Amino acid sequence: MLINGEQTDQLSALDRGIQYGDGLFETIAVIDGRLCLWERHLQRLQSGCKRLGITAPEPAGLLAEASALTRHCQRAVLKIVVTRGIGGRGYHPSKDAQPSRVIYCAPWPEYPAEYWEKGISMRLCSTGLGINPALAQIKHLNRLEQVLARAEWSDPAIFEGLMLDSDGHVIEGTMSNLFLIKKGVIITPDLKHCGVAGIMRGVIIELAATLNIPLVIEDVSLDDVKSADAIFISNSLIGILPVRIFSGQHYSLEPIPSALIQAVNRQMSGHD
Amino acid sequence: MLINGEQTDQLSALDRGIQYGDGLFETIAVIDGRLCLWERHLQRLQSGCKRLGITAPEPAGLLAEASALTRHCQRAVLKIVVTRGIGGRGYHPSKDAQPSRVIYCAPWPEYPAEYWEKGISMRLCSTGLGINPALAQIKHLNRLEQVLARAEWSDPAIFEGLMLDSDGHVIEGTMSNLFLIKKGVIITPDLKHCGVAGIMRGVIIELAATLNIPLVIEDVSLDDVKSADAIFISNSLIGILPVRIFSGQHYSLEPIPSALIQAVNRQMSGHD
Repeated sequence: MLINGEQTDQLSALDRGIQYGDGLFETIAVIDGRLCLWERHLQRLQSGCKRLGITAPEPAGLLAEASALTRHCQRAVLKIVVTRGIGGRGYHPSKDAQPSRVIYCAPWPEYPAEYWEKGISMRLCSTGLGINPALAQIKHLNRLEQVLARAEWSDPAIFEGLMLDSDGHVIEGTMSNLFLIKKGVIITPDLKHCGVAGIMRGVIIELAATLNIPLVIEDVSLDDVKSADAIFISNSLIGILPVRIFSGQHYSLEPIPSALIQAVNRQMSGHD
Repeated sequence: MLINGEQTDQLSALDRGIQYGDGLFETIAVIDGRLCLWERHLQRLQSGCKRLGITAPEPAGLLAEASALTRHCQRAVLKIVVTRGIGGRGYHPSKDAQPSRVIYCAPWPEYPAEYWEKGISMRLCSTGLGINPALAQIKHLNRLEQVLARAEWSDPAIFEGLMLDSDGHVIEGTMSNLFLIKKGVIITPDLKHCGVAGIMRGVIIELAATLNIPLVIEDVSLDDVKSADAIFISNSLIGILPVRIFSGQHYSLEPIPSALIQAVNRQMSGHD
């Protein structure tokens, strides 16, 4: 692990990352020593830093550190955490705070291949997402909602939980974005009020346009999910993962366009 | 600073407190070596831990550590941070995680006496509070909303900012609870959807009952604030602090019952 370029795993307990969750993170797939979708992760990190008023790490230095840690990894997850650092009295962020930069590798999550072949099970979480446009889309460090939602079940047969916002709109999974398919149209929830704008979600939205597959971003209700022809979820590690069962209801995998799945896989494998 | 009983200020960057803001804290006034309202802080910490599913620190040991750090302090702020510790894959909290316990003293904030004599200025924040009953009242570590709200102004003449929830209800200040007075009745916002149940708020609610001062907990609108006869804010360090100006409008300090102020001061000074 590198913290501000030094080999350590220790951070000051006065860091605002600990005190207030005052920062953000990226979770990046590493395949054969390659940082998948690096430019997109970098851009989201920079955009999130800008919105939170945190000075973003210098890109070349960040890439050098990330590459040094992952060069010999076949499969791994690179996590980058950027916090506002130490400083400021109470909540007021100091202009002089030096951001902290934590970079490390975690093991690749080895999910069974049948997750992709047969689809996964998803449940509905009772823990909701608070509405806050100021934080919407950012992959920030305030993740208690996800922690409590994920703590709702321990059955390993259930892979993911679906979260609604406080107005009852369907937003996302605890660790993934959601897509429905209805009559050949892909629908993914609007994240203007809350939720994380996943990198893979962005890839899928762009690839759909490239492949001429109709895709709309709009408000989604639980009824929309129940009446969908197919459901899939996405994140940077799983790519596209079909949902076979949601809340006891079965869904077909057929409507998920194989061209889209193949295009996502090509992007992840770096052959595109 | 003591972390898990050891003299250090370094915490593992893998701690879920950093990764997800997965924990909570207390901010305790220390006056003449005495931990003000210790029992109440301990109870809120325990109740918050229970709701988040974190094993609370053992009370006697926590008090011993807190006392050791503050014994010789005339005026200071004791901060206790409890996190879920290291462990669990992704958001899923591990049952085996050993909570982390961070305890340290910070300098007492030296506000001018005229804040209490003449009242402070408060502004309206545009950053709102997300609605989430699962997290409401808990003094947890997910504080980006407060950080962004407090970052809205740098004018030192403004002491506090008022925050609304995403439905437009008035909830609290960035670091204080809110009370209005209307026709002799004290009104404080209901925190069932969001907000922090401040220790001083609880003291005030109880003291009002003891002193036979009418007090109601209910939904509060911005119109209610504008039409109030008086406003005051509270937290564990400031006790009761009158608001002279909110959003350009002037308020009288007269309606704030002096018996309540005196009773709060006695509680803080330990003479009650």
